[in-house]
Amino acid sequence: MTWENVGRVAGLLAEEGLDWVVLSSFDDVCFATGRVVGIETGPSPFAGGPTLALVGRDASHGIVASNVEGIQSEGTAYEAYEGFSLAVTDQTGNYVAALDRLLARLGVSGRVGVKASLPAIVADRLPTGTRRIGPALDRLRAVKTAAEIARLTRCGEVAAAGQERAREASRPGKTEVGVLNEIRARMETLAEARCALAGEYMAGSDRTARLGLPVSAHPVSAGDPVICDLAPRVEGYWGDSCGAFVVGAHASEAYLTMWRAARDALALAEAELRPGMRVSDFDRTIRDFMAGRGRSCPHHTGHGIGASVHEWPRLVPGEDALIERDMVLMVEPGCYEPGIGGVRCEFMLRVTETGCENLTPFTMEPVLA
Amino acid sequence: MTWENVGRVAGLLAEEGLDWVVLSSFDDVCFATGRVVGIETGPSPFAGGPTLALVGRDASHGIVASNVEGIQSEGTAYEAYEGFSLAVTDQTGNYVAALDRLLARLGVSGRVGVKASLPAIVADRLPTGTRRIGPALDRLRAVKTAAEIARLTRCGEVAAAGQERAREASRPGKTEVGVLNEIRARMETLAEARCALAGEYMAGSDRTARLGLPVSAHPVSAGDPVICDLAPRVEGYWGDSCGAFVVGAHASEAYLTMWRAARDALALAEAELRPGMRVSDFDRTIRDFMAGRGRSCPHHTGHGIGASVHEWPRLVPGEDALIERDMVLMVEPGCYEPGIGGVRCEFMLRVTETGCENLTPFTMEPVLA
Repeated sequence: MTWENVGRVAGLLAEEGLDWVVLSSFDDVCFATGRVVGIETGPSPFAGGPTLALVGRDASHGIVASNVEGIQSEGTAYEAYEGFSLAVTDQTGNYVAALDRLLARLGVSGRVGVKASLPAIVADRLPTGTRRIGPALDRLRAVKTAAEIARLTRCGEVAAAGQERAREASRPGKTEVGVLNEIRARMETLAEARCALAGEYMAGSDRTARLGLPVSAHPVSAGDPVICDLAPRVEGYWGDSCGAFVVGAHASEAYLTMWRAARDALALAEAELRPGMRVSDFDRTIRDFMAGRGRSCPHHTGHGIGASVHEWPRLVPGEDALIERDMVLMVEPGCYEPGIGGVRCEFMLRVTETGCENLTPFTMEPVLA
Repeated sequence: MTWENVGRVAGLLAEEGLDWVVLSSFDDVCFATGRVVGIETGPSPFAGGPTLALVGRDASHGIVASNVEGIQSEGTAYEAYEGFSLAVTDQTGNYVAALDRLLARLGVSGRVGVKASLPAIVADRLPTGTRRIGPALDRLRAVKTAAEIARLTRCGEVAAAGQERAREASRPGKTEVGVLNEIRARMETLAEARCALAGEYMAGSDRTARLGLPVSAHPVSAGDPVICDLAPRVEGYWGDSCGAFVVGAHASEAYLTMWRAARDALALAEAELRPGMRVSDFDRTIRDFMAGRGRSCPHHTGHGIGASVHEWPRLVPGEDALIERDMVLMVEPGCYEPGIGGVRCEFMLRVTETGCENLTPFTMEPVLA
């Protein structure tokens, strides 16, 4: 089956007055062609450069990838080069030569669009006068096709399963990294594959009151607030989610007040989200609600998600984009207070014709059973 | 403490007639400055481009990184830019502006060395006449400092602990991905942090006879041959290792014959490895031994390891590099036969003054207890 986004990218090129686009980031390649590029261990040491996708205004397209990546999609012009070899080889030279072959095979000429991720060794081979098309492509990516929504729905299921496991596994005597491994096992078992995993798992009032601490050997203790932000990648697309709870059956009133502010803000967002709203208005609705509870959210209230875990539009003040049907938006109100802890409640919401649908329906309660 | 490699890179620049080098790959940045760049979820969506390290011939140096990465090393010129923001922001523009600030602050001029990973948006800001220094830097990286050997030793311990866990966890009724999660849990518990993890875990005579299959929901059954190739990244450096065994207490004579060919080849390699050998001779010693057992290894017999899981020198025919003290080399003879399965035995060997030291001492036996 043809990946519909090839045609959508071709349409964008016509609108932008471009003849070709050369894409080199893992997420742009996956968005445009459906091709999944491995990321979990960094750029492949067997590659001369990042996997490239070329798309033309007539929807012809091709891929440059090393010989260990394999052909994933029939009907795509494919130029493999020797990366993994039984002899001394020049991987960079092989990569550039494969690009040259693909440029000739597809007849690339005219005005070529590129993005900020483009390597200089690729730029050097393109016709002169390339033009950056970052924002236009990012906007095209925001509205998802049915095939993308199918993948994102699956990602949401995997993330939600991870959240349920987090509630079971968060017990005194374990460590953050130990609990996260149990969560990961549940998600990868459901996905039937390894998944790159972004996010956080933090336990304790000091740790959860801060943003972005790495998962550590810190112990999980009775009464600890936990923030569990799980963003697994499945088949090239991402899920995201965040649950917050206290380890045990009882939470302090101070914690519960914070928890309800974040949880109720998310419920309000679910009730309000629909096509036609301006992002800045949606963001303000959430922030105003939290302010009414005496709280403020120190980060974005959400973001797009797709082939990247964090995509345009970001839900921040000043973003005047209009929300459209089939955008998939993360909404994640959070509040944090030293001495008490942090709370962040996050669902993955698909914008429908009249409202939204939660792709990550997991148990969101402030305490464990 | 100063990271010794800053000075080694400065020395290389003097040798190569260069004034500065601009490094943009996660492994070059870590090698040159000790700075660890996250990789497990791909390039950060909060970054305008890859973290950059600049080093001058006088050993002055600096970093460009987003505001979510944090300063890791005092005494390094550090230019942070807004990546994560509470407002609409131009991450690419912010990144390039931070690079411009660092170029001015360090007084970068003259001849600048670059590598093939350089983004075009970085190349555009550098003095004209940059020159590629890939091979020279790769060779410098091959011989490790004491600080690097300390990190690699720790990586080897983590990999070896994963191999021991693999022998405990490989039981009928589990799946490949389930066993791998138990292994990962052991390694990350020991590392007290999440670890990027390269490698393979394959069960079954059909699957192990092939190279490079992804970990899947395939069941682990009694009598299955297993190949368990574990390469964890700890504090920016990598360990690697491969164990092979049959699930259960009994293996067929056909499997045992293959297993001994690979295991004995590795033992020979351990006995022979020392400074002054030519890589191609070392590789041939291993291949000739396996040929004497009626086997051939269809891949490299090993590779360097450090800030990248797979570094120069690759142990392949035709590589005329000389083996030097304090190189750390993976040696991994393997043989594969449809219908019987595959075997690969891999240790991480540090070259000493007179021989080598195994940094991954784990149980290598053809059957489980």
